[in-house]
Amino acid sequence: MPQFRVVLVEPLNDGNVGAIARSMKNFGLSDLYLVRPCGIGEEATKRAMHGIDILKKAQTVFDEKEALKGVDFVAATSGVSTTNDKHFARIALTAKDFTEKIKGTDGTVALLFGREDFGLDKEIIKKCDFLVTIPASPAYSILNISHAAAILFYELYSSGVDKWEPRQAGELEKEKLYEYFSMLLDAIDYPKHKKEKTKVMFRRLVGRSVPTTWEFHTLMGVIDGAVNKSTGGRLPKKKRG
Amino acid sequence: MPQFRVVLVEPLNDGNVGAIARSMKNFGLSDLYLVRPCGIGEEATKRAMHGIDILKKAQTVFDEKEALKGVDFVAATSGVSTTNDKHFARIALTAKDFTEKIKGTDGTVALLFGREDFGLDKEIIKKCDFLVTIPASPAYSILNISHAAAILFYELYSSGVDKWEPRQAGELEKEKLYEYFSMLLDAIDYPKHKKEKTKVMFRRLVGRSVPTTWEFHTLMGVIDGAVNKSTGGRLPKKKRG
Repeated sequence: MPQFRVVLVEPLNDGNVGAIARSMKNFGLSDLYLVRPCGIGEEATKRAMHGIDILKKAQTVFDEKEALKGVDFVAATSGVSTTNDKHFARIALTAKDFTEKIKGTDGTVALLFGREDFGLDKEIIKKCDFLVTIPASPAYSILNISHAAAILFYELYSSGVDKWEPRQAGELEKEKLYEYFSMLLDAIDYPKHKKEKTKVMFRRLVGRSVPTTWEFHTLMGVIDGAVNKSTGGRLPKKKRG
Repeated sequence: MPQFRVVLVEPLNDGNVGAIARSMKNFGLSDLYLVRPCGIGEEATKRAMHGIDILKKAQTVFDEKEALKGVDFVAATSGVSTTNDKHFARIALTAKDFTEKIKGTDGTVALLFGREDFGLDKEIIKKCDFLVTIPASPAYSILNISHAAAILFYELYSSGVDKWEPRQAGELEKEKLYEYFSMLLDAIDYPKHKKEKTKVMFRRLVGRSVPTTWEFHTLMGVIDGAVNKSTGGRLPKKKRG
């Protein structure tokens, strides 16, 4: 995974700059450059929240070139894409596709965001290695700049992180659960002709819910209790084991 | 795909409410409920931008129950998840996994967002069908409420939309391009011992860039021109076709 540098070109609203600093902190980024920014005041500080250290360390420069020193790839972001592939300078990758392409590379990648009103200058866009856009409704595809940034940071972050998943109950555990359920049906004298259908229903239900081991043990405890109560403890322990 | 209703419970900052209305418009949502909201003033209007119609049509209610009337599933959002699967009420789905689970269903799904400071009330979270979270840095996982909303809306929108892709150059077209490139090497008297390596390099380069048909034709034109120029038009046309 490369290193990322966030470059805001001529931001007009310091609240947005603060919100982007916060979002960088949320998604593990820290390198922020501001090119000819508006005054960075109280609103930026307020909205940066715990991203305040990123805002304070941000480099203010007067030329895009300074912000791109030492950068290996430059990705421009734009809310305006095109479906006409003759306008090749405007053919953008989605945030997802860009993430896929960039995640194998090393080095430093600059993520450029333009002004809230005009976006990035055409000349800058032409020189970039990538043009990235967030797919949105054709009815209104222009996102708030900090929203666009947050979504791009989120995509980059998500792809670099192993998904956390609570341990799921395995096949053996699930089979035991179905066995207990079947015993419960016996224990409550469930109508014989409905039994098979109900067992399948339970199997499907558990299958879809993808229970964790904890949920599995909890459910087993409940069914075991119900079987015991229904039979007055007459079923031998080993049959349930 | 179900219908979605966005429910903001006790929002404290009207700027956030406006930003969420804008983001709903960006991602094709329109049904907004505000439960015991702060005053909705100028800042909300300003930040709603073209989402102003959604803000104006928003229903203000005093009880969560009113906001959930007619809803089939309720998804609570939370910045606080857990890796301990015993705290089952706090086991959250990621925005991506939630999208996968919900997209096949019909009916109406409420997306609940809590207060900026405390989030949603524990009792509400317990009653929800889904708990959804945005994976973020353990160093600071609490997103701005409008960022969290934008990312969730984006995931739901992306999954429901066929990906737009400009038509890509096919294998035959690419093979023709490699042939032209090879002719160019001949035409410029490229050193014989380097030729194979350079052809492979070009093939890899084009392969990685996944050119569109337009880019393919443009490139072919350039190479054709270079071949013509280099050979003084001595190569017979059919050899190049």
